[in-house]
Amino acid sequence: MKISSLGEFGLIERIRRTATRDAKRVRVGIGDDAAALLLSPDSALLATTDMLLEGVHFDLATTGLYSLGWKSAAVNLSDIAAMGGAPRFCLTALGIPPSLTAGDISAFYRGVNACLQKFGTILVGGDTCSSRKGLVISVTVLGEMEKKRVITRSGARPGDLLFVTGTLGDSAAGLEILRSADRGVRSRTPAVRKLIERHLRPVPRVEWGRKLADSGIASAMIDVSDGLSSDLGHICEQSGVGAEVLADRIPLSKEIGTVKALQRQPLEYALSGGEDYELLFTVPPARLRTLRALRIAATEIGTITRGSGMRLVRKDGLSGPFTATGYDHFPQKRKRGGTR
Amino acid sequence: MKISSLGEFGLIERIRRTATRDAKRVRVGIGDDAAALLLSPDSALLATTDMLLEGVHFDLATTGLYSLGWKSAAVNLSDIAAMGGAPRFCLTALGIPPSLTAGDISAFYRGVNACLQKFGTILVGGDTCSSRKGLVISVTVLGEMEKKRVITRSGARPGDLLFVTGTLGDSAAGLEILRSADRGVRSRTPAVRKLIERHLRPVPRVEWGRKLADSGIASAMIDVSDGLSSDLGHICEQSGVGAEVLADRIPLSKEIGTVKALQRQPLEYALSGGEDYELLFTVPPARLRTLRALRIAATEIGTITRGSGMRLVRKDGLSGPFTATGYDHFPQKRKRGGTR
Repeated sequence: MKISSLGEFGLIERIRRTATRDAKRVRVGIGDDAAALLLSPDSALLATTDMLLEGVHFDLATTGLYSLGWKSAAVNLSDIAAMGGAPRFCLTALGIPPSLTAGDISAFYRGVNACLQKFGTILVGGDTCSSRKGLVISVTVLGEMEKKRVITRSGARPGDLLFVTGTLGDSAAGLEILRSADRGVRSRTPAVRKLIERHLRPVPRVEWGRKLADSGIASAMIDVSDGLSSDLGHICEQSGVGAEVLADRIPLSKEIGTVKALQRQPLEYALSGGEDYELLFTVPPARLRTLRALRIAATEIGTITRGSGMRLVRKDGLSGPFTATGYDHFPQKRKRGGTR
Repeated sequence: MKISSLGEFGLIERIRRTATRDAKRVRVGIGDDAAALLLSPDSALLATTDMLLEGVHFDLATTGLYSLGWKSAAVNLSDIAAMGGAPRFCLTALGIPPSLTAGDISAFYRGVNACLQKFGTILVGGDTCSSRKGLVISVTVLGEMEKKRVITRSGARPGDLLFVTGTLGDSAAGLEILRSADRGVRSRTPAVRKLIERHLRPVPRVEWGRKLADSGIASAMIDVSDGLSSDLGHICEQSGVGAEVLADRIPLSKEIGTVKALQRQPLEYALSGGEDYELLFTVPPARLRTLRALRIAATEIGTITRGSGMRLVRKDGLSGPFTATGYDHFPQKRKRGGTR
């Protein structure tokens, strides 16, 4: 069905009907000038926004609309998780090109709502407009948490231990497979499917972020969106510290080791790939026991050091500088191009 | 200066330096995964988002980057004003095409911050990415207000009087002048300049919205963004009422009456033009005296009626149906095209 057969306000009404209702938290939802929302009286409000552009962040040839909706929500929920917060509300702004149907937009919102609902978050507003130049997505997620528990990027101290949740590199490997012109590479073995799923439908680590905030043990935290080297770089720069990372401690999935058609070594995807949406955090050694008790799937991968440099220690004991090689939208020297 | 000479994170740092600091309200601002913000304990949180696309909402041939920044903030502040709220925080997501310089982006943020500061609002976060297809802007504004004072679109009752602030139609007339190929029309007489300014740098009616909310007299409110006929239509539909509007009561500026080169009658711009960002609100007759005491520049233009139709009563006493002719991004029958 063409979107013009609904009209702008018919489309908004259709989106409104997909949203979760919760009169206790949402006083005014979709369909007014602004949403009116209720938070716990003593919490800090968390707010984050991310833009996804067709041809830059995604390619409709390699992602479906449902997955794209899921991911658009997930990358924002991940930012709330990286503060240790509880996501609550979501607003979506969409610029829709003439090529998309009402069914496409419904699929997009099914994906958005599936991800939001999994993490207790409600779609409360947004904007829809026509776009002449591809699909444009901008999502804002609002969360809340106890004021004193907010985990920033700037609290890491020399001696703190460095941890990362889950495994790294799968998303970048999945993207490479999706882009591969070689149909054989894209054959859907379970391992290939897993890597692709990690790229298309990342799972924000909301529960682990909450546990870390509640326990008060993490001194700094960020989500791995630009790549381990870049995101660790943000912690180091904002905390005024350096770091040493042990290459052979970096957690890799069993899937990334089994897909033979990948162009690079698994570790390379893990170091600079990005879009894993795992949590990278630091913990003072004295709090290690508390961390273990939280039962978070996190791996110790290094240590925070004095100074400002980041070093990578390889298996053979050799170490070298570990420089940010993740994605930069405005690279000072273009290292690589392509859609992401 | 090219943006690539700053890099993505250099650009973010530059934007961060332009933002107002307020440690009491902003616990974590630009540069972390999410902003952490403090609101008054008992208030409702207001949230609104608006997307502006090059070639759809604006044309860089007719607007400067400073004005565009101002307007991007203003249209969102206007949505907060239309609930009766106090705007507090702003997030901006920007997709930047290669044609723009670092100076252009600085000018954009000077405009954003000038508008935000005028209304006590702080830039606290956002996203910047590269765009291959024109400038993409998405702005989110967060506000707050007393829970019980929120003014929605759905509270209008038969017999309520209909008011609008300021004057209508200037913005649409200004846009027509800006688009005119005829250089003579675009000659900058004071009246022409005024109409153009009303299009490029609208002033959100935040203070009037606050006064109306504090006094508790407005039964429904909306800002005039799509055009009087469309926006009144939203109030009528969501309140389950009709309306009668007196054409000769609709407030027109003296400027719109003096610019001879305009293609249509002033009233036509006022009825369907849109982008005026005035407040359209309803007040029960018993509260009229309180309204007068608020000293808001508002004009009574009609009455809320039973049923569902909107009627326009012309000067000669003849009346006819008043149908929504404002902007629809996905029109069921295309009435007009063009950039807006």
